[in-house]
Amino acid sequence: MFEIRSKDNLGRTGVLKTEHGEVRTPALMPVIHPGKQTIDVKRFGAEIVITNAYIIYRNPELRDEALRRGVHGLINFDGPVMTDSGSFQLSEYGDVEVENHEIVRFQDEIGTDIGTSLDIPTPPGVSHRRALEEVEITLQRARESLEYRERMMLNAVVQGSTHPDLRRYCASQLAELPVELHPIGAVVPLMESYRYRELVDAVLSSVSELPPSRPRHLMGAGHPMIFALAASMGCDLFDSAAYILYAEDDRLLSTEGTYKLENLQEMPCSCRVCTDYTPSELRGMEAEDRRNLIAEHNLHVSFAEIRKVRQAIYDGSLMELVEERCRAHPRLLEGYRRMSAYVELSERFEPRSKRSAFFYTGPESLGRVEVHRHLQWVKKNLKGRMAIAGPSRKPYSSTLPSSISGFRSMKPQADGEWSVVVADVPFGLIPLELDQVYPLAQSDAPGIMDLEARHFLRELILDLEGDVIISEDLCSELGLQLPHPYSGEVETYVDDLDRIRMIAEYQFGEGAGDALFPDDVRIERSRNTGKIRHIYSGEKLICTMRASDGLFVLSAEGARRLHDGTAYPRCRVAVNEESEPFAREGRSVFAKFIIDCDNNIRAGDEVLIVNAHDELLATGRALLCAEEMMDLNHGQAVKTRKGGF
Amino acid sequence: MFEIRSKDNLGRTGVLKTEHGEVRTPALMPVIHPGKQTIDVKRFGAEIVITNAYIIYRNPELRDEALRRGVHGLINFDGPVMTDSGSFQLSEYGDVEVENHEIVRFQDEIGTDIGTSLDIPTPPGVSHRRALEEVEITLQRARESLEYRERMMLNAVVQGSTHPDLRRYCASQLAELPVELHPIGAVVPLMESYRYRELVDAVLSSVSELPPSRPRHLMGAGHPMIFALAASMGCDLFDSAAYILYAEDDRLLSTEGTYKLENLQEMPCSCRVCTDYTPSELRGMEAEDRRNLIAEHNLHVSFAEIRKVRQAIYDGSLMELVEERCRAHPRLLEGYRRMSAYVELSERFEPRSKRSAFFYTGPESLGRVEVHRHLQWVKKNLKGRMAIAGPSRKPYSSTLPSSISGFRSMKPQADGEWSVVVADVPFGLIPLELDQVYPLAQSDAPGIMDLEARHFLRELILDLEGDVIISEDLCSELGLQLPHPYSGEVETYVDDLDRIRMIAEYQFGEGAGDALFPDDVRIERSRNTGKIRHIYSGEKLICTMRASDGLFVLSAEGARRLHDGTAYPRCRVAVNEESEPFAREGRSVFAKFIIDCDNNIRAGDEVLIVNAHDELLATGRALLCAEEMMDLNHGQAVKTRKGGF
Ligand SMILES: [Mg+2]
Ligand SMILES: [Mg+2]
Ligand SMILES: [Zn+2]
Ligand SMILES: [Zn+2]
Repeated sequence: MFEIRSKDNLGRTGVLKTEHGEVRTPALMPVIHPGKQTIDVKRFGAEIVITNAYIIYRNPELRDEALRRGVHGLINFDGPVMTDSGSFQLSEYGDVEVENHEIVRFQDEIGTDIGTSLDIPTPPGVSHRRALEEVEITLQRARESLEYRERMMLNAVVQGSTHPDLRRYCASQLAELPVELHPIGAVVPLMESYRYRELVDAVLSSVSELPPSRPRHLMGAGHPMIFALAASMGCDLFDSAAYILYAEDDRLLSTEGTYKLENLQEMPCSCRVCTDYTPSELRGMEAEDRRNLIAEHNLHVSFAEIRKVRQAIYDGSLMELVEERCRAHPRLLEGYRRMSAYVELSERFEPRSKRSAFFYTGPESLGRVEVHRHLQWVKKNLKGRMAIAGPSRKPYSSTLPSSISGFRSMKPQADGEWSVVVADVPFGLIPLELDQVYPLAQSDAPGIMDLEARHFLRELILDLEGDVIISEDLCSELGLQLPHPYSGEVETYVDDLDRIRMIAEYQFGEGAGDALFPDDVRIERSRNTGKIRHIYSGEKLICTMRASDGLFVLSAEGARRLHDGTAYPRCRVAVNEESEPFAREGRSVFAKFIIDCDNNIRAGDEVLIVNAHDELLATGRALLCAEEMMDLNHGQAVKTRKGGF
Repeated sequence: MFEIRSKDNLGRTGVLKTEHGEVRTPALMPVIHPGKQTIDVKRFGAEIVITNAYIIYRNPELRDEALRRGVHGLINFDGPVMTDSGSFQLSEYGDVEVENHEIVRFQDEIGTDIGTSLDIPTPPGVSHRRALEEVEITLQRARESLEYRERMMLNAVVQGSTHPDLRRYCASQLAELPVELHPIGAVVPLMESYRYRELVDAVLSSVSELPPSRPRHLMGAGHPMIFALAASMGCDLFDSAAYILYAEDDRLLSTEGTYKLENLQEMPCSCRVCTDYTPSELRGMEAEDRRNLIAEHNLHVSFAEIRKVRQAIYDGSLMELVEERCRAHPRLLEGYRRMSAYVELSERFEPRSKRSAFFYTGPESLGRVEVHRHLQWVKKNLKGRMAIAGPSRKPYSSTLPSSISGFRSMKPQADGEWSVVVADVPFGLIPLELDQVYPLAQSDAPGIMDLEARHFLRELILDLEGDVIISEDLCSELGLQLPHPYSGEVETYVDDLDRIRMIAEYQFGEGAGDALFPDDVRIERSRNTGKIRHIYSGEKLICTMRASDGLFVLSAEGARRLHDGTAYPRCRVAVNEESEPFAREGRSVFAKFIIDCDNNIRAGDEVLIVNAHDELLATGRALLCAEEMMDLNHGQAVKTRKGGF
C-alpha cells in the first residue's frame, strides 16, 4: 500500500506500508549481501533493504536457513525486505539456473515483503526486435508470477532497452496487472557510462504509462549524484550496492561526483568519518577497516541526500535542487536538459502552488513546468492593447511609477487605454493584475540577464497578437529595434475588480471571474500590507486571498457562486455516497472515495467537493492531481474546509 | 608568514604560520565570544579562531584576565588567535570608546597572534566623498598601528564602501605597508541583502591591488553558501559567528541556503546531529540544548565546505564547485556572472595546467579564464585556410574520418590544402594539432547545446580572418546559411612535426616550435595508446609529452634549445647567486631567491631557471605565477628537475 504525502514536479514523498513496517519514500534500499554483511545499515537511516533471493536460493546453507528462519532472520533485519530474483545475474552472466516460478515461490516462502519476477534485463542499444521479444518474455513472467505469489507484494519490472516506445508498451501492459511496485530495469549501463539523456528517456517513457499509485524503483541507482534528478522523474525507490562496492575500490561518494581516496588531501563531507579521520590516516589503515569506514561515509552521504530530496519535495524546491545537482557533470546537465521534452507529462502532476519560490538558475529553468504552464495561459488569454514594461522589483504594481512614457512599436498606435504587462524572467509576460500570484510573484532571477533569457523574452513579445507597445528600456535590453515611437503616457493603475476577476480566471478558469465577483463587491485590505484580504458581496464573504501565494480560498458563498457559475466537472471532485456525510462535516476526502473529478485539478488547487448528482458538499484544497485522485486507493486526496453547506 | 601550496583561478590553498601554530587556508575562524563560549570548536576542525579585543578591553574582569593569562588562556584556545578591534561595534553603534593606539597596543599585550587596527567600516551606498574621507582615516590608522605593535601580525582592512575605485585605492595604499594580512571590510550588509554582484566588485577591486603574498580575510563571511565563490576570488580567511547566531534563531546552515527548523521534516545533512536526531526531537528540546546541537550542525557543514573548497583548489575543480554552489540563489549566480568582468585579473593567476577536466555547466562557463585564454591565442594564431568541422568525440583526430566532405562557405573557395579546426564547446575553435592538449582535450559539455553556446560558436567562426569553409552539419547546428558549397574533400591527417611545433608554440610562445624541433626529429610513441611520448634529435631526448595534459616536459637538451632559441626573459625564472648551486643540483627554487621572471609565467608552466646573467641552471615546473614569484618570500616557487647542466 502506497500513499502520497507531498508532491513536486513528478516527484512525491510517500509512505509504503508493508507487513514489516512503513517506509518513507523516496527511500534508499542498501543492498545486503546474505551471509557477508558486516555493516548495520539501520543506524544510517535505512528503513528498507534489498537482498538477492537468487544467491540465497543457490546456496544450500543460506537456503535452508532462509526457509527455516525467514529472510529477515537470515540477514538480521526486522524492517521491510525486498528481494531481487536473479535478473542481475542474468544480465551479468547471460544465464541463471532457476525458473521464474521457482524463484517467485521461493521469495514468497522465505517471507520477503516485496518479491520480484525473473525479468529479462535487456541492455541498451540492442535491436528493436530483440528488445520487443524480451519485453514479451518479461511481461509473460510478470503475469504468471501473480499465480505463484501468495502473500508478498510483487515487483513487475519495466524493460525495453533504449527504445522509448517499448518502455511505454511494457509499462502500459504492466499497469494492467494487479502488482504493487514497478522497478525500471537495465538502466545501470546507462548510468555507468554517463548516458543520462537516454536514462531520462527510459525513465520518463516508463513513468508516463505507470499508475501513479505504485512506487517506482530505479534499479541499481545508488550514486547520490542522481537521486534528485531521478526523484524529480517520479522514482520512489533506489538501491545501493555502490556504498560498499565503491568503498572496496577506495572511492568516496558525493553529490558532486566521486572522490578517489588516493587524490584526497581533505575529507570532503560533514559525516563522522570525515570529521574523525584524515585521508592519510585512512590510507594507512588495514584494507578492511578502511573499507568499512568509507562505506560508512558512503551511507551517510547517500542517506543525507535522500533526506534532502524528501525535504525538497515537501518544500517545493526539488527542481532547484536538481538544477544544482546537475552541475556535477555536463552529461547530467544534458540529461536534465532532455527532461524539458517531457514537460506536458510533468504538467499533469505538478502542484499549482508550493511552499517555496521559483529560482531561475540557468537557461534550463525556462524549460520548467511552471513556465510552460503560465505561457499556455498567456497564449490563450493575453489579448488586446498591451503596454510591455521591463522588469522592476516585485510586486510590480507597487514599484512601477503611476504612469510610464517612452514606448515604441511596430506600427503607429493611437492614444488610448493600455493594459500593462511586465516582461520578466522566468515567466515571460505577467499582466499587472497577476503580479501577486504564485509563482509569478514568488520568483527570482539573476539581475544580469543571459542570452537565452533575452531571446525568450524577445520571442514572446514578437509573438503577441494585438496591439503592442514596448518600453524603450526593454527594447534596448532585448535588442529590439522598433520604428515607431509612442508619445502617450501609460497608466499603471490596476482596478481592484479587474485584478480579482483576472486572478479568479487564472486560478479557476474561464468565466470564474464573473461567476465569483459581482460588480458591487466590497474589498477589505490587510492593515499591515495594504493587500487585498477579504472579498464580500454585501455582508457575505466570498473568498479570502491567501497571503502566501496570492490565490483565493473560497468561503461557502464563494463555493456556491463558483458551483453555480460553472458546469460539471469544472473544479469538482465527486465522492461516493458513503463518504458524503463525512465531506459535509468537513472531514478530509480520501482518494478511495473519489468517483470522478475535473482532469485539470492539480495539487494545491481549491476544489468543490460534490456528490454524484453534482450537489455541493464542501470545499477544500487538493493534495493530489486528478490522475492520482482517480488512481490511488490510500491516503488523503483533498483537505476539506469546514463548510456551511 | 604565508606560503601558497596550490592554486585555481584566484583561489589558493596555503599555510599561514603563527607563533601558535600553522593554519591551512582557506580557513574558517569561528568567532569566540570571550566569557560566553560553550562549544569547543577545535573538534570540528578549527585551526584558528577570532575573538573581539574591544569586548575584552571594555570589560574590567575580562581585561584583567586577558592581561594576566593572555588571550589564549582567556578563551581557552591554544592555537592561533585573531582579534578584531571594535570596528564591528563602530558599524553597529556608530561609536566606540577606545582610541586606535589603545586597542592596537592592548591586542599586542594580551598576546593576540593577529591584531587589527581600528578601521572605519563604511557601509555600502554612501557618497564617494564620505567613503573617501573614511578610507583616509582607515589608512592613517593602519599606518600608525605599525608603530604601536610590537610582535603581533597586523591586519590592515580594505574599505571603500561600494566604490570600486576607492577599494582599489585603499588596497593599493595598504599594499605599501609592512602589514601581514588584509581583511576586506564592511561587506556584511551586501551579503545579508544578497547583493552579491556588488560583493564581487568590492572583493575583486580590493584583491586586484593586494599583494598575493598576504592572506585576505572576507570579514563576516560565515555562511558556507559563499565560501567557494569567495575562495575563487582569492579570499583565504572567513569568520563565522553565523554558526551560533543562526542556531539561536533555529536556523540550519547549508551550502544550498538556510533551513528553518520549523519547516524541516528531515535533517538535511550527513553530520552526527543530522544522523542522530529528527527535526521534531530538536523542536521538543530545551532551547539551550537545541541551540548547541544546531550550532554543532552549523560548524560541521561549514568546516566540511571549507575542506571541500581546499580539495577543489588542489584538484583544479574550484570553478566547477563555484558553478554548482551559485545555483543556491539567483543573486549568487548573478554575482558569479559578474566575475567574468574580471577575467583579465584572474588570467594573471590561473594555472596553465590542472589535475581535473573543464566542465561546461552553463553559459557562465564560457566566461571562465581557460576559455578567455585560449581565445586570445586563437585570435592571434589561427590564420590561413581553415576547414571548420563540428564536434566529435575526443581526441578529435582519432575519431574524425580520414577525409571529410560537405562544406559550405561565404565566398567561392578553390581546391587545395586546408587545416582542420574543430568548433566545440567550451573552447570554441581547436586546431587538430592541439586536440590532446590541456584543457582543450580535458573538457566536457552537454551534448544538447544551449543557445548561448551556439551563439558563441557562430560569432567565433564569423570573426575568423582568412579563408574558411564550414561543414554542413555545423552550419545547420549553428543556423549558418552560407551560399557556396565546397565540392572538395578535406584530409584530417595531422603531420607529427606540425603537431609538435604547434604544441610548443601554444605552450612556450612564438618561435618555440622551430627552436625546439629540427626537421629531422625522431618521435617515439606509447605502445599502449599510440600517442607521442618522446621526441629526439638523433640520440638526444628533447622532450617528453606528459600523458596527463599533453604538454611537454623538457630534457636538458630541450631546455638548452629553448634557451638558445628565445630571448630573455621568455620562460625564464632568474635566481640570485646564493641559490644558484642548489638550482644546479636540481633542488627546488624558493620564492625568496627569485630576482626576476617572465611576466607570462603561470603555475604549471615548464620554465627555464637561469642566473642573473641568463646562464641556464635547470628546468622545472612553476608552482606559482609570475606575480607571486616576485612577491612571495616563503615557500617553493619552482619544482626543479634534476638537470644535466
Ligand atoms: Mg522553489
Ligand atoms: Mg575541473
Ligand atoms: Zn563523510
Ligand atoms: Zn547536519
